[in-house]
Formats: sequence, structure tokens, C-alpha cells
Amino acid sequence: MPPTDRFVSTAEFYVRYAETDAQQIVHHASYIVWLEEARSHYSRARNADYADFERSGFGLSVVELHARYIAPAHYGDLIAAHCWVDELRSRALTFGYEVAHAQTGVLFATGQSRHVCVTREGHLITLPAELRRALAE
Amino acid sequence: MPPTDRFVSTAEFYVRYAETDAQQIVHHASYIVWLEEARSHYSRARNADYADFERSGFGLSVVELHARYIAPAHYGDLIAAHCWVDELRSRALTFGYEVAHAQTGVLFATGQSRHVCVTREGHLITLPAELRRALAE
Amino acid sequence: MPPTDRFVSTAEFYVRYAETDAQQIVHHASYIVWLEEARSHYSRARNADYADFERSGFGLSVVELHARYIAPAHYGDLIAAHCWVDELRSRALTFGYEVAHAQTGVLFATGQSRHVCVTREGHLITLPAELRRALAE
Amino acid sequence: MPPTDRFVSTAEFYVRYAETDAQQIVHHASYIVWLEEARSHYSRARNADYADFERSGFGLSVVELHARYIAPAHYGDLIAAHCWVDELRSRALTFGYEVAHAQTGVLFATGQSRHVCVTREGHLITLPAELRRALAE
Repeated sequence: MPPTDRFVSTAEFYVRYAETDAQQIVHHASYIVWLEEARSHYSRARNADYADFERSGFGLSVVELHARYIAPAHYGDLIAAHCWVDELRSRALTFGYEVAHAQTGVLFATGQSRHVCVTREGHLITLPAELRRALAE
Repeated sequence: MPPTDRFVSTAEFYVRYAETDAQQIVHHASYIVWLEEARSHYSRARNADYADFERSGFGLSVVELHARYIAPAHYGDLIAAHCWVDELRSRALTFGYEVAHAQTGVLFATGQSRHVCVTREGHLITLPAELRRALAE
Repeated sequence: MPPTDRFVSTAEFYVRYAETDAQQIVHHASYIVWLEEARSHYSRARNADYADFERSGFGLSVVELHARYIAPAHYGDLIAAHCWVDELRSRALTFGYEVAHAQTGVLFATGQSRHVCVTREGHLITLPAELRRALAE
Repeated sequence: MPPTDRFVSTAEFYVRYAETDAQQIVHHASYIVWLEEARSHYSRARNADYADFERSGFGLSVVELHARYIAPAHYGDLIAAHCWVDELRSRALTFGYEVAHAQTGVLFATGQSRHVCVTREGHLITLPAELRRALAE
């Protein structure tokens, strides 16, 4: 279950046909794209739009990724991708995720991704105060 | 402009980061996936859900695809993907598309896709009467 | 058949599982990515590496795309993606493609893509003389 | 470093443009597709072609995935994707991976994926003896 002591965002979208594979289920790499979209949705919901963040000269790089696949999603399923901040440190940020069926609640997958902040030139920096404030509120 | 003499569906979604490329714009193949999602949305809006169609033993195969790229979309843009039936014949079905910015109306791309109906074994058949009725209404 | 009066490159690769869909065949958008890879291979084979071209401050934008799907490819098939220059003009460049099974020769798809040259800032320019020379030789 | 006490396969391929993102590096989900292709290559190299395995009525489902991203790969880089069997048990199979630059040896990412065996109907079974033999040899 998503944590109850912090902000959790939920992005909803239908499974696209292109996201399925020859096993007639959603391909495991498609979930990784969904986790990212859940993260984008989270940042929009927190008024910390990632597109603005990049325009200001920074970026978040994925340094670690972990996913567990529990049940297969299928074409046309309405997905609810929940996202929250798992851990916020000066130099790293970890998001947690749950991907479920939006109507039945069946849990398809869980995940975690760890990120560091980089400048446009690729240098590692501490997370900007503004970003930390937006995520911590 | 989408035609005004027939049903036009509009799917809305944000550009995902994974859909961009090193030119810092949306990759041209991402639009092809959007056209398909526009088609899925169309079929849901017409109560002719493509997932049900496949469960009934049929499929639509893409036999031809045409796209024009007019202006580049970017990460985070809210997309409006319009879809309509361009031509409905006994053995083939053509969809038309316009992909625009949902808020500014800027036109990003137009497209067409032609489809034939196949059985699960891959045999070509005429479009089932039920499908044609649902699309013609 | 690819033209016999000019240079034709052939990229070979196996179909990846992620490139298939729930119809248990290769998804139609995967071919679009293959056409691009065929183009990359062409540029490497002509000593006009597209990565170098971008580093020199230019880019090629896709402005039009056309594909015909003739027979379905499957996971694990060894693909031969043939690519050639269809038309070379001062402001536009068109590539032609054939995608076939590398061992049986079965033709899966044909395609065409039209490109214009843009600067890093997105301004349209005539194709650089160096690029035209490399492609025309 | 890949282990030295067992069979390690190496798939080589160029980074495709579609695999990059607006940070002008390879998108993190593209590596997940590469791990899978490394696995496919491994199975071909062991004469345990995964396509044949599926045709015999079985499939391997990904149940867990872990990736670390160490340095960014770029468009046109020649990738060497190393793959080996990390752990082979009666009900689960774990592959290990290293993704590096084929020419410079720079390490881009490491990964692990855990798989279970399912029938066409989705039932969990022990790994077929034939598969275990092919992988253990």
C-alpha cells in the first residue's frame, strides 16, 4: 500500500497496444516508462514541474531502479500509477511506486527509483533547496 | 482541421520523457504510438472497444501508415490526438489523425493509417458487420 | 527490390521481444525505429556518421514518413534493413527502405522518410555541401 | 566484472537514436530492453533459443528487475551487453548483466532480472529439465 503519512500522486491512463508483447501482456519495460510518467505527474501535482526544473538548468538522473512484477496488466486496462517520495536526502532522492488497476485495485507492480541532481554539463550537485522544499512540503 | 461531418474523438495525455530524443523534442516514432492510442480512444468512445474486438477472435492489422511532421512537441506538453474514420470499405478501414497541443492548438502532426481485418490465424476477412455498424453510426 | 544504381546499406539485427505486441507479431511502430537504425547504419557506411553530423551543429528532422506493411515479422527473426537515398535535393533528403528476413528474403515492409536540415536552434537550412557530397558519391 | 567461472554471452549493437532522450543520453528504460536482448542472445548462444522455448508452450516471466546506472551511453555508441546465469533454482532463474562500451570498456550499467516459468495459460511451473540442462552445461 502507498504510505499514508505523505503526499501520494496518482496518474491514470489506459494501457497502450504498443506496450504489450507477444505474451499478450504488458511488457516489463513499459512499467519503467509508467514509473517515470508517475514521477512527472507527481512533480506537476506538487507544482514542481520537471519541465521547469530542466529549463532552470538542472536534471535528475536515474542511478538505481528496482521493480517487482506481481500480476500482468493487459491492453486497455485503466492503470493507476501511485508515486511518492520515499527518501529525500541532500544528494539523492528516492521515489516509491505502486502500479495497480484503477478500477479493480489489482496490484500489478511496485517499484523504487533513486535519482541524483546534475547540471546541464553532467556535474553532480546537491538537490536545489527549491526542489527539496517543494517535495518536503 | 478534423472533418466536421463525422464523429471525431480526442485523446488527451502529457508527453512522456521517454518519448523525447536527443534533439530534445518528441521522437518521430512516438507519434505513431499516439496515433494508435488515438484509435483505441476512438473505439472506446464508439462503444466498439478494440480489446473486446480482439477477444471476439478478430484483429485489425496496419497495412499502411503515413505521417507528416509539422512542428515539434516537447516533454510535458499536453497533447490532443484527434481521430476519425476517413474511409470505411468492406475490406479496409482508414483512420485520419491530427495531433495538436491541447491548450495552444499548435498542430504537431497529421496522419493516416489503413487497416484490414484478420482472424486469430492471420486470415484476411471482410470487416465484421458489427464493427462497420459501430463505426458508421 | 532496392535500387541497383546506387549505394544500398544493409543493417542486420534480431527482432527484440520488446518490439512485439499482443498480436504476437512485431508492432508496427517498431519498424519505424528500424528504418531510423537503417539510416544510421547507412550514414556510418558512407563515412557520414550522423553522430558527427549532430556534433557539428546540424540535425536532420523527419518531416514525412510512409510505410507499407506486407508480412509480419516475429520475435527472434534476423532482420535485414536495406536503406538508400531516394532523392537528394538542396533542401530535402528522402531515404527509401526495405525490411526483409535476412535468411529467407521474405519482405516485411517498405518505407520512405523525408528529412530537412535544421540548426541546433531549429532553423531550416539547405543541406550542408559536405553531407550532400558524402551521400552523392 | 562478469563472472569468470561460467558462460558469459556478449551481444553487440549500436545505440539507436530512438533510445535517447531529451537529456541527450540513453533513456534509462532503453537499458531494460537491452538486458532482455542480452538474454535473448544468451539463449541463442546456448542453443536454448527462447523463441523455440515459447513455441514448446512455456514462457519466462520477469518477476523482479534491478538496475544500476553508472555512466550515460550516447547515440551511436557500440554497446557490449554481457549476460550470464546468476542463479538457477528449480522455480526461479536469475540473470546478471553488465552493459559497457564495446570499444572503450566504460561501464554504463549493471543489472539483474529474476524469472519464473509459466505455461501458456499463465500457470507457474518448475523450470523444465531441458532448459535447466541447457543453462547449467
